[in-house]
Amino acid sequence: MRQVFHDELEQVAADLVELAHLVAGAIRQSTAALLDADVQVADAVIAADQEIDRRRNELDQRSIDLLARQAPVASDLRTVVASMRISGDLERMGDLARHVAQVVRLRYPENAIPDEVRESFASMGRAAEEIVARAADTIRTQDAYGARAIEQIDDRLDELHRDMFTQLAEGTWQHGTTRAVDAALLSRYYERFGDHAVTIARRVGFLVTGEFHPSDDALDVDDGV
Amino acid sequence: MRQVFHDELEQVAADLVELAHLVAGAIRQSTAALLDADVQVADAVIAADQEIDRRRNELDQRSIDLLARQAPVASDLRTVVASMRISGDLERMGDLARHVAQVVRLRYPENAIPDEVRESFASMGRAAEEIVARAADTIRTQDAYGARAIEQIDDRLDELHRDMFTQLAEGTWQHGTTRAVDAALLSRYYERFGDHAVTIARRVGFLVTGEFHPSDDALDVDDGV
Repeated sequence: MRQVFHDELEQVAADLVELAHLVAGAIRQSTAALLDADVQVADAVIAADQEIDRRRNELDQRSIDLLARQAPVASDLRTVVASMRISGDLERMGDLARHVAQVVRLRYPENAIPDEVRESFASMGRAAEEIVARAADTIRTQDAYGARAIEQIDDRLDELHRDMFTQLAEGTWQHGTTRAVDAALLSRYYERFGDHAVTIARRVGFLVTGEFHPSDDALDVDDGV
Repeated sequence: MRQVFHDELEQVAADLVELAHLVAGAIRQSTAALLDADVQVADAVIAADQEIDRRRNELDQRSIDLLARQAPVASDLRTVVASMRISGDLERMGDLARHVAQVVRLRYPENAIPDEVRESFASMGRAAEEIVARAADTIRTQDAYGARAIEQIDDRLDELHRDMFTQLAEGTWQHGTTRAVDAALLSRYYERFGDHAVTIARRVGFLVTGEFHPSDDALDVDDGV
């Protein structure tokens, strides 16, 4: 019985890692779509988000079934609860990739971002892709120390986000308000992507150590600007 | 044993309703701070968010304890799982109120929004306050049909959000890019507030009917613009 249970828990972890890889692909593609104003790639991201949502639903249903059938306690219970929360973060990251793709679609055939900020968004895209790859590793290895590297990449995303606001300031920005608003929201999507990765790392920490502060979700992680 | 368990479940529901009222207060105050550039009220919202986070942590810890001690199944299990998710939505709504307050603080002593869009934000504030009051009612009465009214208010918030983007468009907006970016992000915070209320209503639906599609969180609710 316990062996079956632990096999099921391992399967949940493996499925979470797979979901994280799907999300990494979505963010990579959405950045590519943004940089090249490629509406086909944007549409592929939008379509793929449904698959991410479907897998998350299926995973959460299995976690609820596990709770009902196995009534886990202590670290096993923590694992199931943490898994359900991590799947929620991953789904939300998939949504953010979709949001980027939707802006590309909305502005097509024009490029949503002017050349001047292209390099900034390319950097955000690279950081976002790296942070989700690290998050996947952290889930796979259950290494609570992976959180440190993830927080460093998140700091980088925050810095890029702040830099974007400097570029959008009065007198500096020469591309009008519509494009300023697009750039601000796009930048925020990438920044939120980092926040969710940090939250995932902390949830893995909870899973390993039993200590987690759910308010980390937001209070420390998301500065809101 | 079961009686104790059901008393505990009822306490969790009562605490969720109380948390929703705290969140309603936070959104009301953050809107007041925004409309009057009142930095004292903004600071009160920022401080109160810590209390919201603390209560959410405490509530979730109690839910995990309930799972461990009582090993609920069927509708009782659904109630505990839904409660943990609802508390997450409420906490996030508190964060959004804090984000509004942080923009007020950042721009103080200037008003973050020009007079021209004051009425739009006043309307968003009223809708946001009403939607969270309705969400609290839905949790309290476990009335899955309350979702309909909540979705209508959310439609109103979406409409106000879209109108804001029209006001921010090239040639219309006369207040520069910094203020355009502020208004766009503020408007998005209000719009997200509505999304979380809709999600809460759907979670109550899950609790009552056993049917929930977690992807509702995002796929249908948050359009990203």
